[in-house]
Amino acid sequence: MKLTIIGTGLIGGSIALKLREKHFIDYVYGVDRNEQHLTDAKELGIIDEGSSLEYAVQNSDLIILAIPVDSARKLLPTVLDLVNEKQTVMDVGSTKAGIVHVANTHQNRNRFVAFHPMWGTENSGPKSAISDSFTGRAGVICDKDDSASDALKMVEQVAEHLEMNLLYMDAEGHDVHTAYISHISHITSYALANTVLEKEREEDTIFQLASSGFSSTVRLAKSHPEMWVPIFRQNKENVLDVLNEHITQLRKFKSALEKDNYDYLEELIRNANKIRGILR
Amino acid sequence: MKLTIIGTGLIGGSIALKLREKHFIDYVYGVDRNEQHLTDAKELGIIDEGSSLEYAVQNSDLIILAIPVDSARKLLPTVLDLVNEKQTVMDVGSTKAGIVHVANTHQNRNRFVAFHPMWGTENSGPKSAISDSFTGRAGVICDKDDSASDALKMVEQVAEHLEMNLLYMDAEGHDVHTAYISHISHITSYALANTVLEKEREEDTIFQLASSGFSSTVRLAKSHPEMWVPIFRQNKENVLDVLNEHITQLRKFKSALEKDNYDYLEELIRNANKIRGILR
Repeated sequence: MKLTIIGTGLIGGSIALKLREKHFIDYVYGVDRNEQHLTDAKELGIIDEGSSLEYAVQNSDLIILAIPVDSARKLLPTVLDLVNEKQTVMDVGSTKAGIVHVANTHQNRNRFVAFHPMWGTENSGPKSAISDSFTGRAGVICDKDDSASDALKMVEQVAEHLEMNLLYMDAEGHDVHTAYISHISHITSYALANTVLEKEREEDTIFQLASSGFSSTVRLAKSHPEMWVPIFRQNKENVLDVLNEHITQLRKFKSALEKDNYDYLEELIRNANKIRGILR
Repeated sequence: MKLTIIGTGLIGGSIALKLREKHFIDYVYGVDRNEQHLTDAKELGIIDEGSSLEYAVQNSDLIILAIPVDSARKLLPTVLDLVNEKQTVMDVGSTKAGIVHVANTHQNRNRFVAFHPMWGTENSGPKSAISDSFTGRAGVICDKDDSASDALKMVEQVAEHLEMNLLYMDAEGHDVHTAYISHISHITSYALANTVLEKEREEDTIFQLASSGFSSTVRLAKSHPEMWVPIFRQNKENVLDVLNEHITQLRKFKSALEKDNYDYLEELIRNANKIRGILR
């Protein structure tokens, strides 16, 4: 089977590596505006050849859009224009309402499957791709009834070969949940990095002291704006809701400290500890 | 050499395991109000025997206070009362100004060394102890000139056997830095957990969707109030400073989103990305 990955970065690259390893695909076209990424992806065995969008799409069974969510949204109609009723197009973006909205106006809507593999790192580019990234993670298919059954089946097989736990949601619900589970973590991490960079001028001290707790909390702050600005933009309303709630929660800690109300501080912490029962 | 650990939990237990493995100590007394911890610590080979405080201290070369910072501060004078000029007492707490203040009024001040190994996990108790925890982490000795040279040498050897990178600071400076590098991370993590628990009622969805990013950001929210309320209390002023700055930073993200100012959002993220150059 032949695959096109549009975007040969962290996610597209990791998927291609794994699907090839599993013999689900045997030929990969890479489409990327970044020539260096194409060169790297070929060297790393992620793609067999770099190609034009048209050629790659017309010669593939499966086309994966693995570019920032704003670019994916813009490019989807062009890709859907090119496919026939035997081909499948999927995306891997972290927001879904926007791209599904675009898809819904296209005559080939049913060739598209909205997919979100819940994995990422703070790194980007083909050199960051890791084939085993997705194992045991959640993979979400949105608005499945709007996809043709064979296209849906194709993406379900992709998720299976990636060893993901498959979930089904509507696109709107997905975007609410990811605001909580993923997008807010990035904002708090960015803000925490900026806090430390603003107030702690002794960079050398940060480097020497940084504990494992700090590093894991701030890790996401290394993530690039090319990917994250479009996500925040597309999921603006949900992200603002969660951000407002988060600021409210932080103010409770502030108030407890300011008033020396350590019983309240303990109560806030005990409540937070409940996350232990929910997260592994 | 004989060691007493007062508190047989995560930190005390991990230190004892490592020092024994390195043959730096050959006998360990455990002092703990929690009988189960003593039983577990003995079973795990962390201690050789549970003991009364008096007996343990009087028969040890080195005494490590590894209990919450408020308890350590209260107990230190009792321990210093019991030691002679050949014994060394050290603590491992995350705040330093408080305990050093107490130590400074004691006639045996110079037998005490204020030490902070910059490592921890969200877990507690002897069962969480791991001997290799400290390797490559920062270990901070505070106000070293107030300790006798042989006591200082002893703690430097401890840090060496724990394979830590040793740093020297004054206690006040230490507490400012740890507010940035450790304490604020815990508050943001607690607040993030509370945000999600408040707004995301579908616990099952949290569990199924939680991405690696979310898990690493919220991991610290599992940390117990018994340890953290005393830390926040002792480092109140510094923590409040950093918390206020953090809320200010979050408001910038909020404002950028509300005003659809995506250039500003990108600028905020690019600034946060600078942490990449500082943290590994």
